[in-house]
Amino acid sequence: MSDTFVVVGGDAAGMSAASKAKREDPETDVIVFEKGEWVSYAACGMPYYVKGEIDDLDDLVAVTADEFREERNVDLRTGHEVVGIDPEAETVTVEGGGETFEQPYDQLLVATGASAIEPPFDGLDLDGVFTIHDMDEADAVEDYVTERSPDTAAIVGGGYVGIEMAEALSARGADVHLYEMLPHVLQPFGDAVAEVVEEHLREQGVNLHLDTAVSGFDGGGAVERVALEDESHPAEIAIVGVGVAPNAELAADAGIELGETGAVATDEYGRTNYENVYAAGDCAEARHVVTGEPDHVPLALTANRAGRAIGQTVAGDPEPVGEIAGTAIVKAFDLGAARTGIVDEERAREAGFDPVSVSISAPTRAHYYPGGAELTVTLVADRESGELLGGTVVGREGAKRIDTVATALTAGTTVTELRNADLSYAPPFSPVWDPILTAAKVLDGKLDRE
Amino acid sequence: MSDTFVVVGGDAAGMSAASKAKREDPETDVIVFEKGEWVSYAACGMPYYVKGEIDDLDDLVAVTADEFREERNVDLRTGHEVVGIDPEAETVTVEGGGETFEQPYDQLLVATGASAIEPPFDGLDLDGVFTIHDMDEADAVEDYVTERSPDTAAIVGGGYVGIEMAEALSARGADVHLYEMLPHVLQPFGDAVAEVVEEHLREQGVNLHLDTAVSGFDGGGAVERVALEDESHPAEIAIVGVGVAPNAELAADAGIELGETGAVATDEYGRTNYENVYAAGDCAEARHVVTGEPDHVPLALTANRAGRAIGQTVAGDPEPVGEIAGTAIVKAFDLGAARTGIVDEERAREAGFDPVSVSISAPTRAHYYPGGAELTVTLVADRESGELLGGTVVGREGAKRIDTVATALTAGTTVTELRNADLSYAPPFSPVWDPILTAAKVLDGKLDRE
Repeated sequence: MSDTFVVVGGDAAGMSAASKAKREDPETDVIVFEKGEWVSYAACGMPYYVKGEIDDLDDLVAVTADEFREERNVDLRTGHEVVGIDPEAETVTVEGGGETFEQPYDQLLVATGASAIEPPFDGLDLDGVFTIHDMDEADAVEDYVTERSPDTAAIVGGGYVGIEMAEALSARGADVHLYEMLPHVLQPFGDAVAEVVEEHLREQGVNLHLDTAVSGFDGGGAVERVALEDESHPAEIAIVGVGVAPNAELAADAGIELGETGAVATDEYGRTNYENVYAAGDCAEARHVVTGEPDHVPLALTANRAGRAIGQTVAGDPEPVGEIAGTAIVKAFDLGAARTGIVDEERAREAGFDPVSVSISAPTRAHYYPGGAELTVTLVADRESGELLGGTVVGREGAKRIDTVATALTAGTTVTELRNADLSYAPPFSPVWDPILTAAKVLDGKLDRE
Repeated sequence: MSDTFVVVGGDAAGMSAASKAKREDPETDVIVFEKGEWVSYAACGMPYYVKGEIDDLDDLVAVTADEFREERNVDLRTGHEVVGIDPEAETVTVEGGGETFEQPYDQLLVATGASAIEPPFDGLDLDGVFTIHDMDEADAVEDYVTERSPDTAAIVGGGYVGIEMAEALSARGADVHLYEMLPHVLQPFGDAVAEVVEEHLREQGVNLHLDTAVSGFDGGGAVERVALEDESHPAEIAIVGVGVAPNAELAADAGIELGETGAVATDEYGRTNYENVYAAGDCAEARHVVTGEPDHVPLALTANRAGRAIGQTVAGDPEPVGEIAGTAIVKAFDLGAARTGIVDEERAREAGFDPVSVSISAPTRAHYYPGGAELTVTLVADRESGELLGGTVVGREGAKRIDTVATALTAGTTVTELRNADLSYAPPFSPVWDPILTAAKVLDGKLDRE
């Protein structure tokens, strides 16, 4: 039971924690400091705002600032930045409303999120060069596209943001060039997914430049060209989406320990090395369900779940934040691609496993039923134990089937057990053997034989 | 290692077993006796043939008789009926090709399937009254509809067959009346699903008569009316789909033990009380993953999986047939409805559990993303252990999410563990908390409080 619960950062983790703590223990003073004006917003929806499928940026806000204040009784202070934490004195230093002040806390949650990585490119400050990591930036991109109707767009980075923005800017009429330093897009999804996605991106008219490093942007005031090693291409707008890094400096400066990933180290309750200081969301590590080791996978569900658990814990009813499997899904034009667990064989070996994998393609519906699509499923398992380590799927429908694999990972099942799962079948929904089962069957056979 | 493996019945279980045994041990003589002409066909596809979405009944055949014979080297004898089994002498008596003969076996699989139950109705033999349980019958229904273009159709029974045939005959232009003796359709799916499905059926113009017993059919040669207790309605075609019963007489007459369900009792390898006699598919019991008790759930995946496992076992590499969760999914016009595990609270209590359940409705995509639908999820758990017992889903998209619940059941997880599963999220595919997670979260809270 705490008297004052202070939360630094008003997005998914912070607001989930604040709401839950106040609901569970209305006597607690819950204060949230958010340096911007937007709270509890769906960053994942921003590409669809740019694409034009969502009319109003406000639609991406799950709960408004006023609702937090008036309905949930959270003392939410937007435009207030926490600039220092003193874990010994149990205070934070806050700048906001034209003043700087100290705020004491009994329990503290660091939920400072992550920021888009800005690579050392020339011309990053030209007009028309954007990272997409907050709502104001999404708004700025949409305005820029509406005002200038760019004929050419450069997307730097073939991760989620890059793929989603390729779709968005294509829909807005731009000729899209996507530049990826690595040999494949969507690196965490593995090659089997990447190859299907790349073929589809090309079919959709995206100019893919793999194994291609961008050095910067040129232009007079506004971006006009994207510069590569030996050449340059026209680009009337550029989106840089090369990953995110945890906003962990505030914590680190206060003596709060970071993990090897560079994010704040936490225990199963989201606690840092200070017992009454928690961290959650994109700035914090979480434990991986397959390796049991800390990992940094900044995604929305992890943030929401950890925030909620910490809210409950500070209200006096301790609740673990849960483990992660690194489950992710992304729409690439008409495809869905998804991943969970450990997909990369090298990473599996580093974690002490001896990985065996298979990829199969199978229809999403009975072969005779109209409208199905081909789903490519990859599963990875440990040779000796048969333990399932991870998987991916990609196809025009059925990407949500990754949840079957994620659930199996969470439960720690073997490939044989997954193969024997009694999944649903009717011709409009699946073949008799769901593609996940077919993949498990093939992998199980491979484990048997080797 | 067997010399002669005899299979009785050439559908899913039988042909899976025959193919697998021959592939694993090509020296084995594999003989399949099938009394009809169709083998390895998808009975589940028949309503869509009647509906007109599948052009040719042959499309429902996964592997043709000739392919089994020529490519898989299975000695498949269609038009041959096994009329007796002598487990002591290890022979079967076969009628076919104009003769009766004894066929010795080293290993035997009874895969005689199930038959549509024929209730004691008057007028069952009128033209235009059908059960839908084999391909010839499906063909006959299609012919009848094409020739007569019935204006009115009576469907007796609100299970899978009834619901699917209501959709099919509506599409063919009939005014459909569906009669169900019980208070709800789709009884194994529970009330939460039934209420959503019933509302949708009515919206689609189906005349639902719940709590209504049919006594028979009237007509001069062809069916003209369906008779109820006090009245009768016009019906130019009638489909009777009131369930199926295992074809277990052949086995029972031979001294092969049946279980309490009336289907053939089997062990974890599909063995009957005779060590070299197996049973699988719609005629056999299987073990339920939640109760650990034998159950009879005649569905395609169970049959395919058990057949395949038995084929491997008789080839010398013993393989369990796997447990079932009673997972099922059905399309009802624009809805998908699915179930798994133990949904009925009374049945849960009979199995020794103290069931607690919740039903929630949540969107299938992020609230701001276009095109989502509402999914109603019900989960049932045991109060004391928190063990997940079963669940259902229903909605215009996302019914395949039942596989998440089925996988959790197979792994024996608790509601808390399911709540913490790291399921996939991106706005086009899911809200941050997938509806299954939301249901698990609410049920977990309810278990905590009670």
